[in-house]
Amino acid sequence: MANNLKNINQGKSWIEVPENSDFPLQNIPFGIIAPENKTPRPATRVGDTIIDLSELADFGFFDQLGIDDLTAFYSPVLNDFIALGKKYTVPVRERLIELFSEGNTELQNQKDLLETAFYTAGSVEVLLPVDIGDYTDFYSSIEHAANVGKMFRDPENALLPNWKHLPVGYHGRSSSIVVSGTNIVRPKGQIKLPEQENPVFEATQKLDYELEMAFITGKENTLGQPIPIEETSKYIFGMVIFNDLSARDIQKWEYVPLGPFLGKNFGSVISPWIVTMEALEPFRIAGPEQKPEVLPYLRLSGKNNFDIKLQVSIIPENGLENIVCRSNTKYLYWSMNQQLAHHTVNGCNIRPGDMYASGTISGKDESSFGSLLELSWGGKKPVSLKGGVSRTFIEDNDTIVMRAHAEKYGLRIGFGEVKTKILPAVKY
Amino acid sequence: MANNLKNINQGKSWIEVPENSDFPLQNIPFGIIAPENKTPRPATRVGDTIIDLSELADFGFFDQLGIDDLTAFYSPVLNDFIALGKKYTVPVRERLIELFSEGNTELQNQKDLLETAFYTAGSVEVLLPVDIGDYTDFYSSIEHAANVGKMFRDPENALLPNWKHLPVGYHGRSSSIVVSGTNIVRPKGQIKLPEQENPVFEATQKLDYELEMAFITGKENTLGQPIPIEETSKYIFGMVIFNDLSARDIQKWEYVPLGPFLGKNFGSVISPWIVTMEALEPFRIAGPEQKPEVLPYLRLSGKNNFDIKLQVSIIPENGLENIVCRSNTKYLYWSMNQQLAHHTVNGCNIRPGDMYASGTISGKDESSFGSLLELSWGGKKPVSLKGGVSRTFIEDNDTIVMRAHAEKYGLRIGFGEVKTKILPAVKY
Repeated sequence: MANNLKNINQGKSWIEVPENSDFPLQNIPFGIIAPENKTPRPATRVGDTIIDLSELADFGFFDQLGIDDLTAFYSPVLNDFIALGKKYTVPVRERLIELFSEGNTELQNQKDLLETAFYTAGSVEVLLPVDIGDYTDFYSSIEHAANVGKMFRDPENALLPNWKHLPVGYHGRSSSIVVSGTNIVRPKGQIKLPEQENPVFEATQKLDYELEMAFITGKENTLGQPIPIEETSKYIFGMVIFNDLSARDIQKWEYVPLGPFLGKNFGSVISPWIVTMEALEPFRIAGPEQKPEVLPYLRLSGKNNFDIKLQVSIIPENGLENIVCRSNTKYLYWSMNQQLAHHTVNGCNIRPGDMYASGTISGKDESSFGSLLELSWGGKKPVSLKGGVSRTFIEDNDTIVMRAHAEKYGLRIGFGEVKTKILPAVKY
Repeated sequence: MANNLKNINQGKSWIEVPENSDFPLQNIPFGIIAPENKTPRPATRVGDTIIDLSELADFGFFDQLGIDDLTAFYSPVLNDFIALGKKYTVPVRERLIELFSEGNTELQNQKDLLETAFYTAGSVEVLLPVDIGDYTDFYSSIEHAANVGKMFRDPENALLPNWKHLPVGYHGRSSSIVVSGTNIVRPKGQIKLPEQENPVFEATQKLDYELEMAFITGKENTLGQPIPIEETSKYIFGMVIFNDLSARDIQKWEYVPLGPFLGKNFGSVISPWIVTMEALEPFRIAGPEQKPEVLPYLRLSGKNNFDIKLQVSIIPENGLENIVCRSNTKYLYWSMNQQLAHHTVNGCNIRPGDMYASGTISGKDESSFGSLLELSWGGKKPVSLKGGVSRTFIEDNDTIVMRAHAEKYGLRIGFGEVKTKILPAVKY
């Protein structure tokens, strides 16, 4: 199979793939769709075509892969599928590449099936792909951490003492992670204005996005048994784009000493298609040098970072799209392997479907800053947008779009987009 | 039904209830059992008798309650049952009180059923009662917050500026919440010793428990729609005892600026029986006066605190039990209603089965301090135990037991216990 795949990876699909599509034959991401009058079920996407995997399972296309129980292909979330493990999910992806490859007629000739299993993107609802058990947010971009440190703490000592020794992270809210296309209501909360003695209760005036990528684990460890860093790749199923919406003023008042809470948990938005680590394999690169040297449990040689191009757009009510940030996952100081090894080194157990976001991904240049907080330097420097408007933070009815893709030797593997509109605060 | 219940509440059961049992006829908590060779299923407990609710459902004992779909009585976790809502769960509890009441022969005469549905406590495995979607830990005891502030920050300004304005809370780890009887391995992690420049990797030397109570929600709100404080009681299903194990040295090095992470998520332990808010109703009391006055969204008149006696014991390897703390939920500054109103005021959505711990519950007197950190004042004052041993923090093979019960006019409603033994750190 591995040998076949090498050729397949250079191949084309009989399904049309538009130029610059994020979803060529070599991607085969996994998601969940809800066709009209049908229960939610697993799907994949090639070009602008979405394929219902439960229908393919019905017709026996996965029968030769040794999967005893095919119920994972009929589940309303991907957790069961992911939990099959790479032993099965990798061959499923390879089988799909085979079925969709130019010259393969197994599926192509089943005209009836094509009618019931194939949808044009946009004509079928795409749902949150997994039931997220636990969600962790890291803080792994050194430029972002330094920018925040300069603004809120000491410009001379922007990084806190622990930052270069461990991938700082904290637990976030799972329930309010929603899929691209879900609009989020501007949160209200306690805000302490500098000129007042007591906090006031009002809608956030400092609503922001954070450009992040997140990975999803596909395998569990036993409580009390750490995952050695050499083993961590086996646990990582795939990735999505993650928009970690943040209310900076609510967060500022609440977060000492136990961390962010209501400033974050009113909504986070992810892209719907989980791109597998196998699809991202060609885009591995070495991470940055880490000095001081990290403790042995965090050391891993090899290419453990990824070269994935990221972009943020703001579309105000005038409808004009403004790309305000171009960043890249290669700027991350801490790798996913290090995050996962650290997360479990105390024995903490993880499960299939758990999600781990990177933290805001900023580069050195201002054009790569992954949040408005950084772009407007705490609101002091408005960002000019098309049509004569500007932003220090997000305003009502602004739409935020994040995109991500990797590209090398003409192969483009992408994530599509995560899009969300901010609605005015509720009366309360 | 309500009128009947008043009499029933003064009644006795035909099931034997030992003196000072936490589980009289008036309790009827809910849990999950796993009888040998059977799937996990809902259960309740009277005295030392555990009753399989799926068996009672089989025999039609809940048929008159208007519950269309009885699958919740066969589910391996209580989430489906709780999600039925108080409209159904309250009548189920009342029906159980009726069935178990002295003089009621409906069930008592079904000798075959008694053999298959009844177990003696200890003879059947009791599991984690709910699949916990999200877990939040609050910090709602003023004495605990002040003690920690005195030790680690400024004795003159022990409370942080936000503490009296909002119930400080943060998101914790769901996956590592386990049921009483589960042993926890001493975690390893990064620790920064004062005399060294760099952190070391080693087993925690400051392992501690935190005496907390937790509530479980039974109803969801829509993302973006806060729960007004007057409505919050409708969302609270019941409570358990919560042992929030903590590694103080790991926490100290990692927690600035994003809060506790590996210092907490290696294991938290809860009592197995969820005691309903209806059973706890007689033990409501007024909360403490809150000054400065809280913002309107946090104001609620009436008796919103509870008088529940709490106790912590340490049993070292010598087998001698030492009660090291007697505390009470009445010491909590912030009520569960306030916690829930605050949690959702930004639109954060909650779900049936989500869990919310109180934070360590300490009173004014040293004898009521709910953690060893406080009892040993940061390790400076060893706590003497029976048999000539002492503790500043928890040692390997120590067992920690927490108990809770309320008592009034001869009625005792309790939670049983949560018990966990600390195993030595793993080699790694």
